[in-house]
Amino acid sequence: MQLSIIKIGGNIIDDEARLSAFLDNFAAVPGKKILVHGGGKLATKVAEGLGIQQQMIDGRRITDAETLKIVTMVYAGTINKNIVAQLQARGCAALGLTGADGNAILSHKRTNANIDYGYVGDVDQVNSSLLTSLLLLDKTLIFAPITHDGKGQLLNTNADTIAQELARGLSSSFEVNLIYSFEKSGVLLNAEDDNSVIGRIDPVYYEELKASKAIFAGMIPKLDNAFAALRSGVKKVIIGRAEELPQLLTGSSGTTITT
Amino acid sequence: MQLSIIKIGGNIIDDEARLSAFLDNFAAVPGKKILVHGGGKLATKVAEGLGIQQQMIDGRRITDAETLKIVTMVYAGTINKNIVAQLQARGCAALGLTGADGNAILSHKRTNANIDYGYVGDVDQVNSSLLTSLLLLDKTLIFAPITHDGKGQLLNTNADTIAQELARGLSSSFEVNLIYSFEKSGVLLNAEDDNSVIGRIDPVYYEELKASKAIFAGMIPKLDNAFAALRSGVKKVIIGRAEELPQLLTGSSGTTITT
Repeated sequence: MQLSIIKIGGNIIDDEARLSAFLDNFAAVPGKKILVHGGGKLATKVAEGLGIQQQMIDGRRITDAETLKIVTMVYAGTINKNIVAQLQARGCAALGLTGADGNAILSHKRTNANIDYGYVGDVDQVNSSLLTSLLLLDKTLIFAPITHDGKGQLLNTNADTIAQELARGLSSSFEVNLIYSFEKSGVLLNAEDDNSVIGRIDPVYYEELKASKAIFAGMIPKLDNAFAALRSGVKKVIIGRAEELPQLLTGSSGTTITT
Repeated sequence: MQLSIIKIGGNIIDDEARLSAFLDNFAAVPGKKILVHGGGKLATKVAEGLGIQQQMIDGRRITDAETLKIVTMVYAGTINKNIVAQLQARGCAALGLTGADGNAILSHKRTNANIDYGYVGDVDQVNSSLLTSLLLLDKTLIFAPITHDGKGQLLNTNADTIAQELARGLSSSFEVNLIYSFEKSGVLLNAEDDNSVIGRIDPVYYEELKASKAIFAGMIPKLDNAFAALRSGVKKVIIGRAEELPQLLTGSSGTTITT
């Protein structure tokens, strides 16, 4: 049975009209599906409103105790429940979750000798039996990027990582397509030219692209993660624009990464 | 099969030590269970922090668009997810929901000729088939008092009402005990004397108590609701202190309302 796991970025979440158009497309995706969202900009806005300083190191948010409260509110509250309600209005049986709900995703607090990221979780385990049961009840699962450590602590967790771990964890029960939407049309041969999308990358071609330095540096961790997902049983990874979701799923837009 | 539906009040939610002690007791309740929570004080605090004025009429919060955002954040985000994580740490397979999730509770925006309550929902329907499936998967459901209208609108909804509607909706599948916890030890014969708890009230005794004006006015709507719940199939309604949850369930504390 097919399962589409789709991660949307902040550029869609933060724009009401684009989110609404995306949800039209998402509701129309056939079969089992999971949506993973972030929501960093709204979290920053609420933190500013409450006078809580946000500390960023290398573009990453440091999640102190106050910031964890904010991201829990905004991701699991505002954004998750609004997406769920809007999908319900589109006839999509959405059900919102964090990793704490039903022990769906267990993680541990990141330890780093150099930087204290605060209450940030690295994923240990996905409870695929619960998620499979919910998917078989025909629920569409909407994940906020919050996990827990099983000892009562919520943890802020990267949404890309959550999508990837869900894809890996569910790949023994489903044929998983993992779709990462971002602000470009796909993996580009020329970073300046949005029309230079590479339609398909397999491991051999990937080595060639890396050797010729044709792909820009920021894409390498994304693609490394994509190939790691494929090695752990995910069927396809697709990278492209959220606005082109139907085309991404048919392979007529974006970049499909396969073994 | 027995199902306990327990509503806790803000006096427990707002006090970390009391909440923790309550969750120890709740996690130990045998069998299927649902917890319904509010969280008004924290919502007021966050609204104040963000400079959003709260309007109250006759002790009821008017839920304008900004206030709806706050209660969604606080109830479905902060409070719900922290309770879920803390129950998981106690070995209780908690899963948090609003009425929007899985279309669990459908409501409509309240219309009142005299007062515009704003985005407040009156419940129309409980999706008992989803909730039964989740309970049969051995999940303990934690409800935040937010519902939706099926057209994309979230609605702030009274937590007592949610508990009662869940009890009614699930009474055809389960033997439901509905427990309302509040700040007194039960229904009192003498409102000034916390030791004057009436252990058991049936419809005949209720008429006597009303006729003799023995019970104070504030209890009458609560008791009317309790009897309405019993008439729609709920097995028992129990009113008492959250701190005495184990004793409430065995009938050695609080007031049990039966037919």
